[in-house]
Amino acid sequence: MQKHQHGGNIRLFSQEIGCDIKEVIDLSSNINFVKPRLDIDFNQLNISSYPNYDALYQAVATLYNIEKKQLELFNGATSAIHILFRDLKLKQCTLYAPLYSEYKKSALLYGYEIKPINRLKDIGKEVVPNSLVIFVNPSTPDGEFYDIDKLMREWIAKECTILIDESFLDFTPFESATKYLKEYNKLYIVKSMTKFYSSAGIRIGAIISNSKNIERIKQHEPLWKISEFDSQYLQSALRDQSFSKKSREIHNSYRDELIEILEATSFIDKIYPSYANFIMVKLKDIDATSLQKKLIPYKIMVRDCSNFDFLDKQFVRIAIKDNIAIQKLKEALCEIST
Amino acid sequence: MQKHQHGGNIRLFSQEIGCDIKEVIDLSSNINFVKPRLDIDFNQLNISSYPNYDALYQAVATLYNIEKKQLELFNGATSAIHILFRDLKLKQCTLYAPLYSEYKKSALLYGYEIKPINRLKDIGKEVVPNSLVIFVNPSTPDGEFYDIDKLMREWIAKECTILIDESFLDFTPFESATKYLKEYNKLYIVKSMTKFYSSAGIRIGAIISNSKNIERIKQHEPLWKISEFDSQYLQSALRDQSFSKKSREIHNSYRDELIEILEATSFIDKIYPSYANFIMVKLKDIDATSLQKKLIPYKIMVRDCSNFDFLDKQFVRIAIKDNIAIQKLKEALCEIST
Repeated sequence: MQKHQHGGNIRLFSQEIGCDIKEVIDLSSNINFVKPRLDIDFNQLNISSYPNYDALYQAVATLYNIEKKQLELFNGATSAIHILFRDLKLKQCTLYAPLYSEYKKSALLYGYEIKPINRLKDIGKEVVPNSLVIFVNPSTPDGEFYDIDKLMREWIAKECTILIDESFLDFTPFESATKYLKEYNKLYIVKSMTKFYSSAGIRIGAIISNSKNIERIKQHEPLWKISEFDSQYLQSALRDQSFSKKSREIHNSYRDELIEILEATSFIDKIYPSYANFIMVKLKDIDATSLQKKLIPYKIMVRDCSNFDFLDKQFVRIAIKDNIAIQKLKEALCEIST
Repeated sequence: MQKHQHGGNIRLFSQEIGCDIKEVIDLSSNINFVKPRLDIDFNQLNISSYPNYDALYQAVATLYNIEKKQLELFNGATSAIHILFRDLKLKQCTLYAPLYSEYKKSALLYGYEIKPINRLKDIGKEVVPNSLVIFVNPSTPDGEFYDIDKLMREWIAKECTILIDESFLDFTPFESATKYLKEYNKLYIVKSMTKFYSSAGIRIGAIISNSKNIERIKQHEPLWKISEFDSQYLQSALRDQSFSKKSREIHNSYRDELIEILEATSFIDKIYPSYANFIMVKLKDIDATSLQKKLIPYKIMVRDCSNFDFLDKQFVRIAIKDNIAIQKLKEALCEIST
């Protein structure tokens, strides 16, 4: 059932258990369930002309408090990651794992030797000099936020090229690594614009770096690559001034509620700290596959984390979704426990 | 004013002449002015989930009478072209010019030595063995359709890798080069889905080849790259059964009308044969820039072709647009002539 890294295949799940796709409670995906208020009519957009991305770049630059020339947009963060690995042409890649499988996949595809560091147990381990460091902050699949200042010092001292993935940072009150752009040239920040802005169907991801690096990357980019629909969606979402605050508040409140439920569950061994829209737990007396099976009657999907490096079949990720989903999960976990 | 290869910058044009963008008669772009009838409400699309492209691939495969595994889609034909040049890693590139500037740009970007052939004057010229042959059919900026059978024989004999760009083929009644896929392994067909389907704002382009080549290309592709909006737009456009026929009929009729007008224009030396939605002319006693200037009072934009290889400032491309546009052009050309 775990077809995609970002969550389960909800269509397949509904087919297998024989229910309507709308009945499935998908706690396996990491897309914000809170939606921005949109102020446009998508049926009225002009899609006959080639898009002009000036306003979109300006909106994203303003959001992240950077200049337009420090930004390059791609049709999704995955595209951005692929392009960066290809562009940088480095030999070794230090992966702070567990993290999205997309990084490992890209590293292998572009011939990097992978040097994983288990950030859950051994975060202080020395990095390979001149390697490409990948750090996801807040991290996946757990959602922990790290103060990376000390790590940054080491990476810079080792002359590493640094990629910080901040696709879930907008869920937190914390500062972006963009603040290090002034002092270090070999720094890239990746942002998926689809998770927080609740739109996996739109394809926009960003690379932020100094203008010289961005200029180099831009050389290989086609003039048009982002859909006008997607561009207008994101601009409209960013005009919703209350969305960010509202999203964070709702997640903080629901996260607490979810933690309470998980704490009361007998077969949960450990709940990992999270600042994102999901929580990772370590199971006891049951493994991920068995739990997934037990949740089928409740039409609930959770994410089996066994394919993440340094994790095994005892780890599961549960998304923070609306109140109905949380209550159904509570009921299910309660019944499974007994 | 000629900022982009596919036409002028309509926004800049309207700003410069101080009129509303809607008043501009843009005969510089090559986007189909006939629009498909859409049967979906874009405001109701599910963009929260990651897209599933099965139905989209099936629709495009059905349209071109190929199998799904012979097809890879990209966020625009430009992306497809870039990726193909990078993937093929060949040394030399035979460009049948004039053609889109994107091919030359890609060739230079990926370190190909360029061997241009002037297809207007010297189409029978020998190609470099083992080179990447690029042939646009119908061609740009003129719209001529070539029976490539004899050329195919030579290219195959020389063991070239062949890329046929058929982005404007849907405007014609002619057969696709997909028919050669069975007999030759090193053949790729590129299709832009935005020109005929009247949607430069959506970003979908296709590469068609044998399933082995497609599998190789797919390896480097991210799981999600096309916007769900764009996917649904194209699927909806393809459900409009009457669109293709209607488009072709309207263009055939308006093309004849446009040719009549051009034939009556004193400063036009030659009208090139076209099967696409544009016509190239060679001017006399006036150059492209001067004609563009003279058309400003009429708010009409045409495409200066001087930046195409083997063309010069005497060449202009004029798009086939609606009846109002044709009549305005007629009026303008008439007044300029006298």
